[in-house]
Amino acid sequence: MTEMQPARSCLAIVLAAGEGTRMKSRRPKVLHPVAGRSLLGHALSSVVQAGADSVAVVISSERPEVGEEALKLMPGVRIATQHERRGTAHAVLAAKEALKAGHDHVLVAFADTPLVRPETFAALRDALAGGAAVAVLGFEARDPNGYGRLVESDRGLEAIVEHKDATAEQRAITLCNAGLMALSGEHALAILEAIGDDNAQREFYLTDAVAIARARGLGAVVFRAPESEVQGVNDRAQLAAAEAEFQRRKRHAVMLGGATLIAPETVFFSFDTEIGQDVVIEPNVVFGPGVSVADGAVIHAFSHLEGAVVGAQASVGPYGRLRPGTRLAEKAKVGNFVEVKAAEIGPGAKVNHLTYIGDASIGAAANIGAGTITCNYDGFIKSRTTIGANAFVGSNSALVAPVTIGEGAIIGSGSVITRDVAPDALALGRGQQVEKAGWAKTFRTVAAARKAAKKAAE
Amino acid sequence: MTEMQPARSCLAIVLAAGEGTRMKSRRPKVLHPVAGRSLLGHALSSVVQAGADSVAVVISSERPEVGEEALKLMPGVRIATQHERRGTAHAVLAAKEALKAGHDHVLVAFADTPLVRPETFAALRDALAGGAAVAVLGFEARDPNGYGRLVESDRGLEAIVEHKDATAEQRAITLCNAGLMALSGEHALAILEAIGDDNAQREFYLTDAVAIARARGLGAVVFRAPESEVQGVNDRAQLAAAEAEFQRRKRHAVMLGGATLIAPETVFFSFDTEIGQDVVIEPNVVFGPGVSVADGAVIHAFSHLEGAVVGAQASVGPYGRLRPGTRLAEKAKVGNFVEVKAAEIGPGAKVNHLTYIGDASIGAAANIGAGTITCNYDGFIKSRTTIGANAFVGSNSALVAPVTIGEGAIIGSGSVITRDVAPDALALGRGQQVEKAGWAKTFRTVAAARKAAKKAAE
Amino acid sequence: MTEMQPARSCLAIVLAAGEGTRMKSRRPKVLHPVAGRSLLGHALSSVVQAGADSVAVVISSERPEVGEEALKLMPGVRIATQHERRGTAHAVLAAKEALKAGHDHVLVAFADTPLVRPETFAALRDALAGGAAVAVLGFEARDPNGYGRLVESDRGLEAIVEHKDATAEQRAITLCNAGLMALSGEHALAILEAIGDDNAQREFYLTDAVAIARARGLGAVVFRAPESEVQGVNDRAQLAAAEAEFQRRKRHAVMLGGATLIAPETVFFSFDTEIGQDVVIEPNVVFGPGVSVADGAVIHAFSHLEGAVVGAQASVGPYGRLRPGTRLAEKAKVGNFVEVKAAEIGPGAKVNHLTYIGDASIGAAANIGAGTITCNYDGFIKSRTTIGANAFVGSNSALVAPVTIGEGAIIGSGSVITRDVAPDALALGRGQQVEKAGWAKTFRTVAAARKAAKKAAE
Repeated sequence: MTEMQPARSCLAIVLAAGEGTRMKSRRPKVLHPVAGRSLLGHALSSVVQAGADSVAVVISSERPEVGEEALKLMPGVRIATQHERRGTAHAVLAAKEALKAGHDHVLVAFADTPLVRPETFAALRDALAGGAAVAVLGFEARDPNGYGRLVESDRGLEAIVEHKDATAEQRAITLCNAGLMALSGEHALAILEAIGDDNAQREFYLTDAVAIARARGLGAVVFRAPESEVQGVNDRAQLAAAEAEFQRRKRHAVMLGGATLIAPETVFFSFDTEIGQDVVIEPNVVFGPGVSVADGAVIHAFSHLEGAVVGAQASVGPYGRLRPGTRLAEKAKVGNFVEVKAAEIGPGAKVNHLTYIGDASIGAAANIGAGTITCNYDGFIKSRTTIGANAFVGSNSALVAPVTIGEGAIIGSGSVITRDVAPDALALGRGQQVEKAGWAKTFRTVAAARKAAKKAAE
Repeated sequence: MTEMQPARSCLAIVLAAGEGTRMKSRRPKVLHPVAGRSLLGHALSSVVQAGADSVAVVISSERPEVGEEALKLMPGVRIATQHERRGTAHAVLAAKEALKAGHDHVLVAFADTPLVRPETFAALRDALAGGAAVAVLGFEARDPNGYGRLVESDRGLEAIVEHKDATAEQRAITLCNAGLMALSGEHALAILEAIGDDNAQREFYLTDAVAIARARGLGAVVFRAPESEVQGVNDRAQLAAAEAEFQRRKRHAVMLGGATLIAPETVFFSFDTEIGQDVVIEPNVVFGPGVSVADGAVIHAFSHLEGAVVGAQASVGPYGRLRPGTRLAEKAKVGNFVEVKAAEIGPGAKVNHLTYIGDASIGAAANIGAGTITCNYDGFIKSRTTIGANAFVGSNSALVAPVTIGEGAIIGSGSVITRDVAPDALALGRGQQVEKAGWAKTFRTVAAARKAAKKAAE
Repeated sequence: MTEMQPARSCLAIVLAAGEGTRMKSRRPKVLHPVAGRSLLGHALSSVVQAGADSVAVVISSERPEVGEEALKLMPGVRIATQHERRGTAHAVLAAKEALKAGHDHVLVAFADTPLVRPETFAALRDALAGGAAVAVLGFEARDPNGYGRLVESDRGLEAIVEHKDATAEQRAITLCNAGLMALSGEHALAILEAIGDDNAQREFYLTDAVAIARARGLGAVVFRAPESEVQGVNDRAQLAAAEAEFQRRKRHAVMLGGATLIAPETVFFSFDTEIGQDVVIEPNVVFGPGVSVADGAVIHAFSHLEGAVVGAQASVGPYGRLRPGTRLAEKAKVGNFVEVKAAEIGPGAKVNHLTYIGDASIGAAANIGAGTITCNYDGFIKSRTTIGANAFVGSNSALVAPVTIGEGAIIGSGSVITRDVAPDALALGRGQQVEKAGWAKTFRTVAAARKAAKKAAE
């Protein structure tokens, strides 16, 4: 054995052909999302991070959209179709062509088991290093009832025994089969093809691989993972449980990285959220996909961000709503009940209250008053609003795009601005104030009388 | 025994006369709500679903509003008044007139125990089928300390022993008395009237019914329920615990029914919320009473709905606020910081941002711009706004009701509309834009100087 | 022994010199907040409530801002600087000058252990009453691994043994050292000065105080606190855990005090929040510092309050945002997507929808329409808006401060008001409505054609 070893090639076969009837959904089970990414996407990401250089996804012929999604997520993936559901080994063999290519390792993963960490898949591969032909992922079950038991001896794994076939002694075993497996590429195809359907269900079970390997004098071993990693998703309650476990991990990682989460249990991340150091996230914040938050920024309570870049020391919310294409520069501030979409907010600029900024760019240190609306859509096309640095837009103004407000310009409160405004100019667009003395008093008398009369008539 | 049995009549006596001092409330305890319905309402609903065809509510003479609420919830209910608090059996006998009517079964329920499921009440009644005169609801207590213990023999329930009277051996029993009971109608009144007050508190305890039945050679049995069902409400912390248990059940049922709850622990339902299949509910959503959501709709984060019908594939939020009388048609969309009240939003219509729609109807595929306000109230009466199909209301407009916008009409941004607009017309109502060159620059110079002078003077 | 005893003087030494590297923060660890108050602030508040009449805070010379914060929190505090980190006893002796003043008791507290209740500190002092020189705070650890063990005999505490030095028998002890200590003032300095650095780390350990006291024939005792009180904060996950424990306590206290928290786990209080009786707080409410809510008020879901006084039977939210300086009078109502800052809202006044009220006072029973904006800022100064009692401000109006709306006046919807309005007058400030028949239809035809042409060209 040399100390440096060449990287070993690895084929991952991801089983994604299950029915998923308990999801009660028109959408295939493995396309349901956890943390903004499909179950399938989680499985693919994990096996690739674990070093799989070739990936086959086994789909059902009834659910072609699963293959489409797999190709979208990973253009080089090989799609294998299972035409009947005849067991896990049958499903794996749908990828027979891929198996023939002769990789060092074969990983079998399940698309509905999204929480297995890349480190765990890698360790499962490493478990083959001692010469075993099969490495099975096991877990200590809190309640082993119903699971296949992993029967070990001092030479490793002896067999996987289904709960219903287990003896009383075997049922006392709490080490259970998670279903995932690594096989040595040398033996994988031969073992898989030796699996038969001689059982009540007439299905081909991947678990038989252990007994077959043993019968051929090959080794089999177990690698243990925490139960929380191997939980599968079969109904919406389990989908929620998987989401919860993902969030628990992500929150913990973000906190240990140096961000404050005042109430971590109320902050929801996406799979790809990036949070800097000394960021503070208040309670009740939701991150959709594609968000990064730079050092020292504060995300106040009740904020919702997706597809947004938040600059250093910027401030969002409470009730800040950042939609895709938002970029907040350093120290920019987006306040309460403010929605921003496809817009850049310059350094130190402020959009503090009850405002909609869409398809716009706002210059440094500009101040956008409460109730401002960029009117970016005429029913057919979207147009842009450009606001110069140091401009001041008075409250309750409507800026009808396409329009440019020059640097340092001031817009009077309540204006409708339809034409460009020159730098350093004042622009107003509002009606004249008129007053009718005593009118309100008269109105109240008449209206009250009418209301009373109406009530009396009823 | 025939296979088909006639339905057995059942009187439910719901005890609602407790003091509730630990609630520290001006409101009677049993009128506090869980999931938008009073504790009393939960108890009444459960006993009726368990087949009670006659219901008596025992109230305290100090709290007549409990009787009023009972009659509002169930007009045919019989109100019985307990004038002194002399124990549970004394309370049950306040409904003596109802007992005399001679039902097959008598159920005794507590208005402050809102989580007993109808199936449990029904099973308690069924437990009388073997000929027992009394069936007691028991539960396995995690901590039996303080509870009455249920002493069983092979012929059934022998006695209920209060904690303080229990022997060391009896204290080891973890099967405890939940207080609820079913009695055979034949023996109920006689047993209840035999209960005495020969004890330190000089109260009449319903638990004595077991010993009395046994003394008369009648049978007594136990039916077991989970502890989570029988938890009573005596203070606000227990009220919150009951709410949590209700929500846990409802969330689970909604998920198993085929809806996605990304973070179920952050979604709050009312007792009557109806959720369709393939509905997605994002984190932090609150449902007040009277909401139904049709298949495929999405309720985004931070939304709050009450008294609203959400059509198939409609979309609400984030930050969507639907108030009573809202009806969203198929594929309608209500976006962020939008409030809708007493309004129909037509198929595919969009109200996307920072808008108030009250007392209105909006036609199919209409588009309501950001910041639109329907001005529905003049301080005396509310008037309606009607917007035709395919109309386009520009951003930041005020529509002063009563007013009708014709089909296909366009309202210019920032307009105040006080008169009807013809179909396919353009209406504008806003000031002219004027510009004063360089004004802003001068203003800034002067204002900055003034501010500095003011600071210096301080 | 007389029944009345004179109050005993007490010096509290609060250790705040730790490095806090695991926080990964530019801010010193003890200045991170829990429930809106720094860890240091929690510790100072607790020792003072426990009767400390003199307080010394030991800071690191690298973190002078800790001393500044301590002086801000408690102007009379004595700041002692530790120049090297050489152990807890070394840190305590940085306050040697204070120790020389000769108090009856010396309390040693940690600034990063914010959850110790004043009652616990007081009980630790009381534990000295029997004549012991040292009283150590202990806790029963769920997992004692890594903690120092408290070895007791029938005469009290014998020694504190570090985990690594413990025998197998001692490791079986689950009573662990929380680090906090009370010492008799008579012996404190002598004991502390006797502590040596004869150990692998060459540090001076406070835990040696027990052995030294025993060696001198003095008594040592343990006072037990729940583990939840003594958890320290070393990283952001522990900071979140401390926040969670604080919130758990506060929520429970608020509920037992007679307020309804529908979902207590979603309500976040500050250290100083005051909640009256029969207040209802819906799910998802965040209280920043400085809020009091009077009896019978309702805080609806998704509200965020800071620095605000909410009057009896007032109503806030859902989505109510009260910023510092807000005062809601009795029965005032602030509705959804409404922000209020530095403003009084009079009795029964209503601000129901999509409104910004800043630097204003609103009279009794006034009604502020949806979309109203007080324009309080011109880029340089903030000006006030005054609205008289019974005034009615129509929807979507902009009130340009400084401006006064007289009592009973009416503002027409969509107005921009720049001049004062007389009582009982009607004021309008908006453009005339004009209509162009058929324009929308033509526009649609042209725009659709253009859009199609553009698409075709791409």
